[in-house]
Amino acid sequence: MAKNFATRKEDYSKWYNDLVLKADLAENSAVRGSMVIKPYGYAIWEMMQSALDKMFKDTGHVNAYFPLFIPKSFFSKEAKHVEGFAKECAVVTHYRLKNDGKGGVMVDPDAKLEEELIVRPTSETIIWDTYRKWVQSWRDLPILVNQWANVVRWEMRTRLFLRTAEFLWQEGHTAHATKTEAEEEAERMLGVYTQFAEEFMAMPVLQGVKSENERFGGALETYCIEALMQDGKALQAGTSHFLGQNFAKAFDVKYLSKENKLEHVWATSWGVSTRLIGGLIMTHSDDSGLVLPPKLAPFQIVIVPIYRKEEERIAVIEKGKEIKADLERVGIRVKLDDRDTQKPGYKFAEWEFKGVPLRIAIGPRDLQNNTVELARRDTLTKSFTEMEGLRDKALDLLDEIQDNLFQKALKHRDENTHSVDTWDEFKEIIKNDGGFVMAHWDGTNETEDRIKTETKATIRSIPLDYEDSEEGICVYSGKPSKGRVVFAKAY
Amino acid sequence: MAKNFATRKEDYSKWYNDLVLKADLAENSAVRGSMVIKPYGYAIWEMMQSALDKMFKDTGHVNAYFPLFIPKSFFSKEAKHVEGFAKECAVVTHYRLKNDGKGGVMVDPDAKLEEELIVRPTSETIIWDTYRKWVQSWRDLPILVNQWANVVRWEMRTRLFLRTAEFLWQEGHTAHATKTEAEEEAERMLGVYTQFAEEFMAMPVLQGVKSENERFGGALETYCIEALMQDGKALQAGTSHFLGQNFAKAFDVKYLSKENKLEHVWATSWGVSTRLIGGLIMTHSDDSGLVLPPKLAPFQIVIVPIYRKEEERIAVIEKGKEIKADLERVGIRVKLDDRDTQKPGYKFAEWEFKGVPLRIAIGPRDLQNNTVELARRDTLTKSFTEMEGLRDKALDLLDEIQDNLFQKALKHRDENTHSVDTWDEFKEIIKNDGGFVMAHWDGTNETEDRIKTETKATIRSIPLDYEDSEEGICVYSGKPSKGRVVFAKAY
Repeated sequence: MAKNFATRKEDYSKWYNDLVLKADLAENSAVRGSMVIKPYGYAIWEMMQSALDKMFKDTGHVNAYFPLFIPKSFFSKEAKHVEGFAKECAVVTHYRLKNDGKGGVMVDPDAKLEEELIVRPTSETIIWDTYRKWVQSWRDLPILVNQWANVVRWEMRTRLFLRTAEFLWQEGHTAHATKTEAEEEAERMLGVYTQFAEEFMAMPVLQGVKSENERFGGALETYCIEALMQDGKALQAGTSHFLGQNFAKAFDVKYLSKENKLEHVWATSWGVSTRLIGGLIMTHSDDSGLVLPPKLAPFQIVIVPIYRKEEERIAVIEKGKEIKADLERVGIRVKLDDRDTQKPGYKFAEWEFKGVPLRIAIGPRDLQNNTVELARRDTLTKSFTEMEGLRDKALDLLDEIQDNLFQKALKHRDENTHSVDTWDEFKEIIKNDGGFVMAHWDGTNETEDRIKTETKATIRSIPLDYEDSEEGICVYSGKPSKGRVVFAKAY
Repeated sequence: MAKNFATRKEDYSKWYNDLVLKADLAENSAVRGSMVIKPYGYAIWEMMQSALDKMFKDTGHVNAYFPLFIPKSFFSKEAKHVEGFAKECAVVTHYRLKNDGKGGVMVDPDAKLEEELIVRPTSETIIWDTYRKWVQSWRDLPILVNQWANVVRWEMRTRLFLRTAEFLWQEGHTAHATKTEAEEEAERMLGVYTQFAEEFMAMPVLQGVKSENERFGGALETYCIEALMQDGKALQAGTSHFLGQNFAKAFDVKYLSKENKLEHVWATSWGVSTRLIGGLIMTHSDDSGLVLPPKLAPFQIVIVPIYRKEEERIAVIEKGKEIKADLERVGIRVKLDDRDTQKPGYKFAEWEFKGVPLRIAIGPRDLQNNTVELARRDTLTKSFTEMEGLRDKALDLLDEIQDNLFQKALKHRDENTHSVDTWDEFKEIIKNDGGFVMAHWDGTNETEDRIKTETKATIRSIPLDYEDSEEGICVYSGKPSKGRVVFAKAY
């Protein structure tokens, strides 16, 4: 399984790519930059979707669906938004093909659209064009809508999950009567994303806001969570935008307030995508392959039967089915690998590589002794355990693995977060080990741009308590700084 | 709520459209032919998805995701497929916009794609291009994959849910070692669709196969389920295709058999779409609005509190919450409509129009008497019932409503299915009441085409037992017929 598989030290980028391919998560398609998400990778996305969808619904949101296509003119309605998004987009110009007379097909020149349609890179414009019809009075607010959808952003350099032309995501779009409510919503969803990242993905994240340079086009404030990958690079894992009244003004969405005044509506939007799968991989996986936190593992436990003779096969598989049913009774997701076409060693290697948190092996001797062999994916340790009490033991171990993965990732992040006060040290750290660098910054776009040019590090986020923190001197310009911000090279 | 709402008799088509809009299911968008699926409509789709997804998984299928875009050249690889699909498609020709210098954006002529990309109308081609990489040996088969996705087929005349340029669907694509296995799979999925339509949608369907004229482009056999709407027109509710080796040949997908021979793989594909929501509406709804079968109703029960004074409000809402929690304990989906901004009469009308199967009203007198008022949406009848035992009563009633809706629809279909032996009678029925007409047909495309031209009726399906049924004389040509087939005008 793991043959020809690069280690992280040898080549982190190749390690990542090999892992995605060999663990059957995704692969490139015939369409440049578009990936195929294979069943095992998609099953992880389904786990993520299901957890997030529940959290969205628990916070009062409902799902809806808006068109894939957006009229070109919509993009120029919000000035900053057009700068951010109306660049690398897929453009539909025709609506018909015809036979080319040579056995192939060609675009029918007679079927040209009057106005080109853009394949959505994000849906603020088409959604706010719709909200105009939904909102008349304060009684119609808030609108708390989420959409699960595919989006397209043309990318020249793509990487599976991390940066693809088409990706899957959810985008929340909410409308509120007041500024305060909208700000609270943007912060609430940042909280939901943080909880999801830490509790489900076992991936610690820093909360903060983006600098003006990195802000979403059309937002007044972009809240974000940033995670640190094992190679010392940061990954933006989710964003939540306070959009002010920008889209309401661009699309003329007003409501009659309780005081009988016509006001523009306040907005937020927030999203996470299949990119999270890339973050999950780079947070926990190792040189033996994928490592999945139990809460998001499609199979939490794999049972591998061991046998030589046919009567042994029948007996251990019978026992395997029994154990599976018993574990499933408490909601554990179990795979019994009863393929007769592969040897146990192959199965061990395959499921280890695919990151299944716990493996149970049962052979004829185990049947006699009433034991099973338990192997943990996170520590790669094995132990024998009594068949009796296996279910409770499994539940405990899954919790322990989930926690262990989080603690390990947290330790890695803490060890790779540096408070830095000199420009030399800044450059040194960014160049060598990477990690999060907490440094003073003078608050200007110019300094941020120069630091980026010289080191490739960007401001990942400005901590939420920035305004109340210690003042200092900008690590680059020597000018006064209101507080430390988080720098890192990023995916 | 129901003001300005056409009755079915007055104008069936307007009734349908009004209902979709006023029940907040969907609306037209700024993009011609593309709809917005509103939260209440989308919640129905989520119920459908969840039931179907479980049925697919129970029959061994897994989900995956394939690209939205398909290279143009892929469409000409399968000769029949290109005829069926490479016509009314959205074509992406460019990948960038730029500022037009007048405050707007324009398509950047320098960013023209070398090969145009087609927005998927269905995914056989891109998927079989992928399966080539997945299949080497018989051990890799079967592949049992499903995809939940959006697809685009350019349509000139659109109707909400029934025919839209973009729609949501699932498409199963399976690969098998033998012809028999593939045929069995196509039939199995027809069975799954039938069970879903009848058990969940309470919509009786006829199973059959399509005539050559109506067959899916690239299929050797198209199995289908057909339902009869209240206006006597048929709706194709789902199709399952046996594709033979056509796509394997077009995309060179071969496997090494157990006998060590290189063979082409056998295929099926099958799909249902948001069109089913249109079918659901037209099967059960009435002149008072939407009627939803309990199994697919986002809210199965709505509780409306009735009060005048504040202390009454507190008391009845308290009781409402208690009842809600009690009903939810057994999995009933309950909405407590505690809005203080609307009167009970308004709420009654709204939820009746939105088709909630059961309504519970509680007022101060009910609190004294320990009763509630129960109203059934299907029969529009009301009764008082004891608070004690309400949960069991509710469960029974929901089952009863589900069954009643199915029986009513079945009765309607039976009363509107006619065995016809003369051409005059055929024309008469199709012209007046419509319905399913069971008639002998000589088996030729020509006769089918002529019947369609003269009456607009098409062959909806050829019954599965066609070959074994009574022979006769074609109702149109007088030539010999192997058996009766199902004619109807269709959506």
